[in-house]
Amino acid sequence: MISTFAEYKKSIDLFLEKEFLNDSPDTLYSPIRYILASSGKRIRPCLVLMACHLYQEEWQEAIHAAACVEVFHNFTLLHDDIMDEASLRRGKEAVHIAYGIPSAILSGDAMLIYAFKYLEVYGAESFKKLSSLFSSVSIAICAGQQEDMDFENSETVTISDYIRMIENKTSVLLGAAIQMGGIIGGCTEEDENHLYEFGKNIGIAFQIQDDILDVFGDQDKVGKIVAGDIINNKKTYLYLKALDLLDEKGKARLKSLYASTPEAVEKKIEEVRSIFRSCAAEAYAQELKEAYYILGVSHLEALNLEGDKKQPLRDLAEFLIKRDH
Amino acid sequence: MISTFAEYKKSIDLFLEKEFLNDSPDTLYSPIRYILASSGKRIRPCLVLMACHLYQEEWQEAIHAAACVEVFHNFTLLHDDIMDEASLRRGKEAVHIAYGIPSAILSGDAMLIYAFKYLEVYGAESFKKLSSLFSSVSIAICAGQQEDMDFENSETVTISDYIRMIENKTSVLLGAAIQMGGIIGGCTEEDENHLYEFGKNIGIAFQIQDDILDVFGDQDKVGKIVAGDIINNKKTYLYLKALDLLDEKGKARLKSLYASTPEAVEKKIEEVRSIFRSCAAEAYAQELKEAYYILGVSHLEALNLEGDKKQPLRDLAEFLIKRDH
Repeated sequence: MISTFAEYKKSIDLFLEKEFLNDSPDTLYSPIRYILASSGKRIRPCLVLMACHLYQEEWQEAIHAAACVEVFHNFTLLHDDIMDEASLRRGKEAVHIAYGIPSAILSGDAMLIYAFKYLEVYGAESFKKLSSLFSSVSIAICAGQQEDMDFENSETVTISDYIRMIENKTSVLLGAAIQMGGIIGGCTEEDENHLYEFGKNIGIAFQIQDDILDVFGDQDKVGKIVAGDIINNKKTYLYLKALDLLDEKGKARLKSLYASTPEAVEKKIEEVRSIFRSCAAEAYAQELKEAYYILGVSHLEALNLEGDKKQPLRDLAEFLIKRDH
Repeated sequence: MISTFAEYKKSIDLFLEKEFLNDSPDTLYSPIRYILASSGKRIRPCLVLMACHLYQEEWQEAIHAAACVEVFHNFTLLHDDIMDEASLRRGKEAVHIAYGIPSAILSGDAMLIYAFKYLEVYGAESFKKLSSLFSSVSIAICAGQQEDMDFENSETVTISDYIRMIENKTSVLLGAAIQMGGIIGGCTEEDENHLYEFGKNIGIAFQIQDDILDVFGDQDKVGKIVAGDIINNKKTYLYLKALDLLDEKGKARLKSLYASTPEAVEKKIEEVRSIFRSCAAEAYAQELKEAYYILGVSHLEALNLEGDKKQPLRDLAEFLIKRDH
């Protein structure tokens, strides 16, 4: 039986709502409940459940792996917000603003440990497989965050550096989430690899879409400040590709715009937007996104399963890269 | 064959020296190498190796578990130093001073993940046992650090609160280190429990000794600022016990000393020292330390092993609580 995304999401929300209620000291757990309560899209844990459901009806068996991935993802948001000095998250005060930096660091640490701990419900062989996969991608995610921070002060970032960074920072977790679901569902090693590659490539497409939406999205739909990447002079694919495409004069102009943080940002945003469009960086971004999407879906199609079963993941992949928010 | 503490320590030092040399990005791994290079006493990883050696000659088999415990311990120091705004660690700049807070947070996170990852060399059953034990004590350690921070702003800390806090923050890791060594050496579940209780209780005695040394130790031998706990108005066992023992007038005097942070601290330190001594708080601390030591050693003696084998751990336990630095 096919379940809807909303059903998977509801089961995650219910599971997490009951977590960390009676643990002591409350000062450690209250920040954890706070960040988990502002639920976000729950895409990663739903991917775990959906992938498990490809192979068995009892997709609820994957709920602890889904919790692992979601608690881990929120841990990264929590610690990243401290590192990036971001004060808002999903429309609420970031944890380090609401609870102070020491508690934010420590509660994040505890979430990272709980992420590993959730996997302990699985049998020894599965546990080892899941935990090893999870630790490897967690390390990659730390590397991605460090690269992201390093890029801020680097003048030599290439497009391939950027793709590697978003692959580490964002995409490998999507790949691992889907692979973990498959492992719990009992898929073959060949399918495990396809699941991972599906998630990873869709994840790269997803991040490129994020970069496009940041610049060209409709603020009301995206729900966060549009053009934050331009305001913060982030070296995204759009920026790096524009530098590749522009002539010396255009390049100098874009660089000088990115060296400034004017009070009135609107004019800067408008000019950068128009540069990205006119030099075709936007079109290249759409094309690259499409290429990763197609590559990702080819791995979904390669799974040793009836085609119908794959429809919910096909739909989700399409939503993730065609979304307008 | 009995090995010396120096041999165990050397094997840890050699192992860790070769770690994180070629991982990328270097900006993530350089802070990790930095903190691991200032080696400290390596007590916890040596306990892992020594406990394994109780049960098998090939104590080197426990080296990855020893690395897990040591990398984790250094992760806690790294993050605690950010939380406590401590600028020095083992005579060098703390990581967050040398590399900045964002890198310190992120490198710490990576160390926590590597701690779990080290255990992956063991077979699935052992891995699950080791990882579950390790995650449980890691959570307890977070709880202990949070309690320690909470105590700063609390006027109602009791001695039993304090013992629970040091048990969480310090002792359970010693217990787990020794138990992990036993698991790898193939000991019985009964011995596992004795090993844990031995380490935990010696750990509590060790922490009480730390508190005593902080106040009454010889600065040249201890190697850090003596009386840091008095300067920072820390609610240690000595302070809490003194409040129990003193009359109303003495209690008020001690509280007023702990409410102040005078420029010239020497006078404050001298007066607090003399209060702790005259009200017998120091004597009580020595007695309590001795009680935990005896309890710990009773678990060592209860191990199902020839007495000779236990001598290195007997010696180490004695050193840990009788040390003058």
